Amino acid sequence: MRVVIGGIDGYIGWALALHLISRGHSVIGVDNFITRRRVEEVGSWSATPILDMYERLKVVEELTGQRIDFVEGDLTDYAVVRGVFNKYKPDAFVHLGEQRSAPYSMIDVHHAVETQVSNITSSLNIVYAMKDVSPHTHLVKMGTMGEYGTPNIDIPEGFFEVEYNGRRDYLPFPRMAGSWYHWSKVHDSGNMMFANKIWGLTITDVMQGVVYGTRTDEIVDERLHTRFDFDEVWGTALNRFCVETVLGLPMTVYGRGGQTRGFISLTDSVQCLRIAIENPPDKSEYRVLNQFDEAYSVIELAKKVYEVAKRKGLEPAIANVPNPRVEAEQHYYNPIHEKLKKLGYKRTRMLEDELSIILDDLVKYKERLEAKREVIFPRTDWRRPRNPLR
Amino acid sequence: MRVVIGGIDGYIGWALALHLISRGHSVIGVDNFITRRRVEEVGSWSATPILDMYERLKVVEELTGQRIDFVEGDLTDYAVVRGVFNKYKPDAFVHLGEQRSAPYSMIDVHHAVETQVSNITSSLNIVYAMKDVSPHTHLVKMGTMGEYGTPNIDIPEGFFEVEYNGRRDYLPFPRMAGSWYHWSKVHDSGNMMFANKIWGLTITDVMQGVVYGTRTDEIVDERLHTRFDFDEVWGTALNRFCVETVLGLPMTVYGRGGQTRGFISLTDSVQCLRIAIENPPDKSEYRVLNQFDEAYSVIELAKKVYEVAKRKGLEPAIANVPNPRVEAEQHYYNPIHEKLKKLGYKRTRMLEDELSIILDDLVKYKERLEAKREVIFPRTDWRRPRNPLR
Repeated sequence: MRVVIGGIDGYIGWALALHLISRGHSVIGVDNFITRRRVEEVGSWSATPILDMYERLKVVEELTGQRIDFVEGDLTDYAVVRGVFNKYKPDAFVHLGEQRSAPYSMIDVHHAVETQVSNITSSLNIVYAMKDVSPHTHLVKMGTMGEYGTPNIDIPEGFFEVEYNGRRDYLPFPRMAGSWYHWSKVHDSGNMMFANKIWGLTITDVMQGVVYGTRTDEIVDERLHTRFDFDEVWGTALNRFCVETVLGLPMTVYGRGGQTRGFISLTDSVQCLRIAIENPPDKSEYRVLNQFDEAYSVIELAKKVYEVAKRKGLEPAIANVPNPRVEAEQHYYNPIHEKLKKLGYKRTRMLEDELSIILDDLVKYKERLEAKREVIFPRTDWRRPRNPLR
Repeated sequence: MRVVIGGIDGYIGWALALHLISRGHSVIGVDNFITRRRVEEVGSWSATPILDMYERLKVVEELTGQRIDFVEGDLTDYAVVRGVFNKYKPDAFVHLGEQRSAPYSMIDVHHAVETQVSNITSSLNIVYAMKDVSPHTHLVKMGTMGEYGTPNIDIPEGFFEVEYNGRRDYLPFPRMAGSWYHWSKVHDSGNMMFANKIWGLTITDVMQGVVYGTRTDEIVDERLHTRFDFDEVWGTALNRFCVETVLGLPMTVYGRGGQTRGFISLTDSVQCLRIAIENPPDKSEYRVLNQFDEAYSVIELAKKVYEVAKRKGLEPAIANVPNPRVEAEQHYYNPIHEKLKKLGYKRTRMLEDELSIILDDLVKYKERLEAKREVIFPRTDWRRPRNPLR
């Protein structure tokens, strides 16, 4: 299949590109490298050294013999998006090209607005371009399990049967997100559902859990590394814990650590995305997939890292720091995630094994982590945004 | 009370300002006159001639002896918004300053993006400015009944008790909006709920029905008219039917006309808003009000206009034109609207009486309607957006 990846320079985008070409798909990437600039803005960088895109693509060709087409461009520019759809008329477009950090969106009003505006704009541009020049394309849109929040009832895959005052309907499940970033994905989901309704576009909206890991089967050479963020703004919980442990810092568990989320390894995330691409929904269907393997509380994760690190002779420690976020620290959590399994998804990575690989990889790049140790501890606070006018 | 009205130059904003000063409140207005420019953009104007803001304010002072402070500024500019909150520290801020036309948002990708971006940005700016310099302010935010769509179950006021797989929770009611504009209000509602959650801001989110009417008790002089839009982009159904009838055109009922919506007169809309302002929710509460009087189908409305017009010796006619929108034309519709009544709201306008006044007012301005008759018939189509690149 011919697949365009919006955001190919990102953590998942790059790993997905390598996975798709290994499966014989033809891949085109789009990126404007804004994540690199935004990570620099907060004084950080990727733990794994990553080549620039044009070098990356040369290495891919050298190692696999396969060519990935690349378009340098901004998905918030309609002419760019329309141009890509017009030129490639892809079977699938995977939209990974959004601002994806919750803390970044919480820095101040300008980061809140930038996150919601750029995320909504890119998705609107994509559905209009599909409608305009490529209506057969299957859009695979990255959302987040965080759209649902932590309701006291089970979380279905997007929609549920409601009975209320004696009548019934099948409705979108209520969303209760926990940051401006997570809300931007809720807004996107509403917009995607509507684009499907009015134009019959074929869309898979992926509610993904937190992704962890440094490797996929295709990352066989240092020059093929995907980025790996670890600072308080760009690093996800588990990745951050591993980095803290390698640096001899205590793992920063926010609050009591009972916050429970769905997690999935990078390898299995790109497996899921590949399955979604290879198994599109019916034409003109809007499909929601809950994409994660297992739910863990933050403190359970920290304990897993502790065990694995200890076995390696590292000296792990766990600290409960004041929670900079506004979230329940003990709650019910039971999201349903069956649809991907029915499409053939099988978990291939166990948490402990993956943690071992991450720690080994990070030990290699310890100097890069040391250089940025001051940006690991949380300072973006949900309750106290920075004042952009002071 | 000291009340800032964002969007004071608009249809409801201006009527609300006059109503509030008549009740002894102190009013400050903010506007950048963008609705005037956007209406010009589609080749239309207000049926009622409206003065420019600075002349309007002089007339108010001349007739009532009261001064309305005015800030010319754009609510999508954070410095403007923060400046207003910092200077006035109002008891209430009424946010009527958003792009409020569904067809405008459906013209093409640029109008879709502009609508969602400007609406979301202004609301984010307002909650950040409140948090930053005026946390005691009660925000009264204009949403729309259209956020809910037309589910097959009753529509509560914002939240409902859900039972699912044997467990219960009290959750936001699912939203199913019918245009990019209506979705922008859904996005706002999510953002307002979140701002309330993280910062304890006090917010009333008004789900308002379709507003009709040319007059309020305070519009006692031609120079005090509020705007009245009637073209296919800016006019609401009932206002448009009246204009069509005065021009001897058939009323353009979209499709079968079974689409049912909640309606409220302009007079009672500003009464409701005044009641919401004078009766704020508890401190740090997020309150949702469903604000409309009665639900009518579009065809019922057309028949009402027909009867009233006939009695006046006009020659009304009804035409069913192809529906440019994507919406159910026969559906269940039962939204609950009790909270405003409990706060003291009493309906003061009956539909027939109000229609009579509207028709009399419009006959006076028939020449202004004639001049724009080519922009009344629907041409903005939900299924066929214009291509901005052709």
